[in-house]
Amino acid sequence: MTQRISVVENILNANDRLAQENFERIQAAGVFSINIIASPGAGKTSLIERTLPLLKGRLRVATVDGDIATSLDSDRAAAAGASASVQINTGGDCHLDAVMLRGALDQLDLTQYDLLIVENVGNLVCPANFKLGTHKTVLVASVPEGDDKPYKYPGSYRGVDALIVNKIDLLPYVDFRMDYFLQGARVLNPSAAVFPLSCRSGEGLEAWIKWLVQNAA
Amino acid sequence: MTQRISVVENILNANDRLAQENFERIQAAGVFSINIIASPGAGKTSLIERTLPLLKGRLRVATVDGDIATSLDSDRAAAAGASASVQINTGGDCHLDAVMLRGALDQLDLTQYDLLIVENVGNLVCPANFKLGTHKTVLVASVPEGDDKPYKYPGSYRGVDALIVNKIDLLPYVDFRMDYFLQGARVLNPSAAVFPLSCRSGEGLEAWIKWLVQNAA
Repeated sequence: MTQRISVVENILNANDRLAQENFERIQAAGVFSINIIASPGAGKTSLIERTLPLLKGRLRVATVDGDIATSLDSDRAAAAGASASVQINTGGDCHLDAVMLRGALDQLDLTQYDLLIVENVGNLVCPANFKLGTHKTVLVASVPEGDDKPYKYPGSYRGVDALIVNKIDLLPYVDFRMDYFLQGARVLNPSAAVFPLSCRSGEGLEAWIKWLVQNAA
Repeated sequence: MTQRISVVENILNANDRLAQENFERIQAAGVFSINIIASPGAGKTSLIERTLPLLKGRLRVATVDGDIATSLDSDRAAAAGASASVQINTGGDCHLDAVMLRGALDQLDLTQYDLLIVENVGNLVCPANFKLGTHKTVLVASVPEGDDKPYKYPGSYRGVDALIVNKIDLLPYVDFRMDYFLQGARVLNPSAAVFPLSCRSGEGLEAWIKWLVQNAA
């Protein structure tokens, strides 16, 4: 076991160095960048689809979509109005890492954008261990996942800058105690901005858009 | 990169050998065993909570609950009537492996049970790569996750023996095309048994219980 741990630590250190390089590159181009993490089906892609039209004429947006297979997500981002959309197929890997993001950045002229949205692989465990070099980490939770998730996945809820609670239109139909959920999330991360919203109904999206525009200004 | 791949392959081979040992041990004790995998919040624990009372007097059940943190899941399994319930805290690891299950089996007198339910970590990517040595793999999908999941997470949907589609009570409130979902799942695994059900309303649970009882007989 010692051998294995040592190898993993070396990989993580190398990743952190590359993440720092990515950060400096994004920063130098004057772009604000976010890394979106979530469970499968929490609504990362739907959030991006809803967000892009609302940013039209205000921010020029590039998206990088990580997926194990298919280009369904980047297709949706492109259709929703991303100025550029790069797909990363991880080929089975459970997370994006800084090497993969560097490969995507190589395909973008960053000076042409104000906002870079990186959509990570749907996974509430592994992506939290791999910095990419973005300015902020955004976690998309969703009401039907249940209100115990911050308690059960503390690694992902810790270090989050913005917490989206999606699918609030389903609140009447499921058992979800918003106060219990937020209590768990805030213990791990008292300063996170919280955005309860519904990508389906559109409710609550304005506050999220305002946060993006303010940060990208 | 070659070095890293080689290490991972060695770990997987070692895991497969231990999984075979686990299987022989479970088989020798006359126990039927399942490995339940799912996204966070799809309803693994709720399914177990619903299943145990319905098996009362028919099958003696032991549960092994894998989680990154907390004993919330095994507490719920014990409260629902598991004859024995072992919690594995992976301490951050994104999946159960055969070593962890062996440690749990060491704490159980397998001859006392008919059914062993292993609840994996909530993750639709990594658990699929680590055999545990159970007889069957059960994937719990849920309606609000969306109907594109078999296409986006083929590694987890491939090799599944039973597919539960949970939260069908939410079908009227979300966009979920059951035929599109099942088409994707069946391409990857034509022989999987499919159980649309709702742990909340109880609808559809009988067919699932029947499948368990028949397999454990």
